[in-house]
Amino acid sequence: MKKLINSPADVVAEALQGLVAANPHLALNADHAVVYRADGPTPGKVGVICGGGSGHEPAHAGFVGLGMLDAAACGEVFTSPVPDQVVEATKRADGGAGVVHIVKNYTGDVMNFEMAAEISAAESGVEIETVLVDDDVAVQDSLWTAGRRGVGLTVLVEKIIGAAAQEGLPLADVAAAGRAVVAQGRSMGLALTPVTTPSAGKPMFELGENEIEFGVGIHGEPGRERRAHASAAELAKALALPIIEDLPFVAGDSVIALVNGMGATPLIELCLMNHELGKILAEHGITAARTLIGNYMTSLDMAGASLTLLRADAQQLAWWDAPVLTAGLRWGV
Amino acid sequence: MKKLINSPADVVAEALQGLVAANPHLALNADHAVVYRADGPTPGKVGVICGGGSGHEPAHAGFVGLGMLDAAACGEVFTSPVPDQVVEATKRADGGAGVVHIVKNYTGDVMNFEMAAEISAAESGVEIETVLVDDDVAVQDSLWTAGRRGVGLTVLVEKIIGAAAQEGLPLADVAAAGRAVVAQGRSMGLALTPVTTPSAGKPMFELGENEIEFGVGIHGEPGRERRAHASAAELAKALALPIIEDLPFVAGDSVIALVNGMGATPLIELCLMNHELGKILAEHGITAARTLIGNYMTSLDMAGASLTLLRADAQQLAWWDAPVLTAGLRWGV
Repeated sequence: MKKLINSPADVVAEALQGLVAANPHLALNADHAVVYRADGPTPGKVGVICGGGSGHEPAHAGFVGLGMLDAAACGEVFTSPVPDQVVEATKRADGGAGVVHIVKNYTGDVMNFEMAAEISAAESGVEIETVLVDDDVAVQDSLWTAGRRGVGLTVLVEKIIGAAAQEGLPLADVAAAGRAVVAQGRSMGLALTPVTTPSAGKPMFELGENEIEFGVGIHGEPGRERRAHASAAELAKALALPIIEDLPFVAGDSVIALVNGMGATPLIELCLMNHELGKILAEHGITAARTLIGNYMTSLDMAGASLTLLRADAQQLAWWDAPVLTAGLRWGV
Repeated sequence: MKKLINSPADVVAEALQGLVAANPHLALNADHAVVYRADGPTPGKVGVICGGGSGHEPAHAGFVGLGMLDAAACGEVFTSPVPDQVVEATKRADGGAGVVHIVKNYTGDVMNFEMAAEISAAESGVEIETVLVDDDVAVQDSLWTAGRRGVGLTVLVEKIIGAAAQEGLPLADVAAAGRAVVAQGRSMGLALTPVTTPSAGKPMFELGENEIEFGVGIHGEPGRERRAHASAAELAKALALPIIEDLPFVAGDSVIALVNGMGATPLIELCLMNHELGKILAEHGITAARTLIGNYMTSLDMAGASLTLLRADAQQLAWWDAPVLTAGLRWGV
């Protein structure tokens, strides 16, 4: 294993310090591995937090900042944050108008966020709404989940309800906006190479020279099938069609598209995948009103890609376009 | 070789189409593989272009847009653009106030940009200034260069003189601003894994399980030495000290730092490297006034990182902070 790290035990703590040092809009509670807005919480604004295991950077600490998250609870690599971390993130986000917990659907995350919500409510009386993200159409249940996994759509949920909260919407409306995104968004991914966590030190699974893991999760967990590697055109179709058919997306739909790298995929390949996606959408009469290409919801050093489509209305597009100042996503400010 | 591509011959053309489709501010001359501002050229503004072999994404097409480049000439992977491409990029950037060519110091690039400058001047009378970037302190000459290679600093040159041009400075001043950046900036990189080009289909060099290529170039070309892999703390020091000693950077300096990934390095490792860099700079009394972390000047699927430091004055910081709207770098707009 060749990684740019010191000791596996210190990876998350040291990376968060490096992130915060580069971003003056961020602050760090090192004891809890919670990254929060240096100027927060914003009085009267609904707080928005997310969290989960580390290893998915820039998610989620890289999405803390104006117009997106107020705080992120960063677990160890591929390990849910413990309730105390989520309680701390909730506190940092609490401007007196309630806090939304964005939770990716993994059993550990769901349980720990639920416990944290109870503790936070009991301790400070903060009102909490949870938005559960379960956009992965690859499998119904998985090793780590009951129900579908939460993957790339989480980035869109964070951006869109971050903007809604920044605009001043009340708690119930911000949460409803999040659930509306979850209802209209779907994703699927594939891996070209396995992922190696710092603590394991060796690949979490093996892939043959010509094999891909199709429908892979963001922890390298198995997907629909092992299949032979194929052209970008075929793979884009194999990812996009199940997504389109699942919602289903239909002719006339306007979508926000995320062409996401898993961490070790060069941008040139993601751009090429977007070219293929564009052809498929055109064939279905679907318009990509906005497209984001890059590594946003990753799995450490895994090579691969995922596609996310969100059927978006004018309000969602306006929230997508609203100013955002985070390490991972920034425009308008 | 597992890549998300169709045929090696079509990678650049298809990736550029995918890039432009996702970015309404961009337009593409597909025949010449030139990406340019859809709203350009801007009358009366000095044009700024760059170019080079593809495989370094987001450089350079991903840096075309308001406040940065007017056009980029995209060669085949790791292959200089031919003069005709650079002539076309120059034409797309020419708003009547002259054009700056930003050229990374590789023999092929230098020769082809020089020929293109002569052709452009002869054909249209456009005045051209060239800014040669040669920031890599790893080696004096290399397989591909006479003199030092141009690497990560190119991104900072593009941003800073893009802002100067946007502000309305005349040609000579924009070029001088570029040369000032080159004079005050230094870089060095390392590779943890080799790079595989689509056409070769196999790694360009071999690295042992515990070996790194220290001082590597952005085409995977050899650097100072093969050495044993080490901790992030040791590697950050091994990269930063030669950079600091070369200029030299001294106590009291204020710098713009780029912690750059080579394409397949996860963000969590780059953030950790920035944490180590921060400690080294502090020991030397150097302040990182701005820090950018991410994959900006890459080498396809190579894992590794490079550090770039630019001693920056108040004017350069202001240009760095000025609005920019590109696929790869965006803020303030």
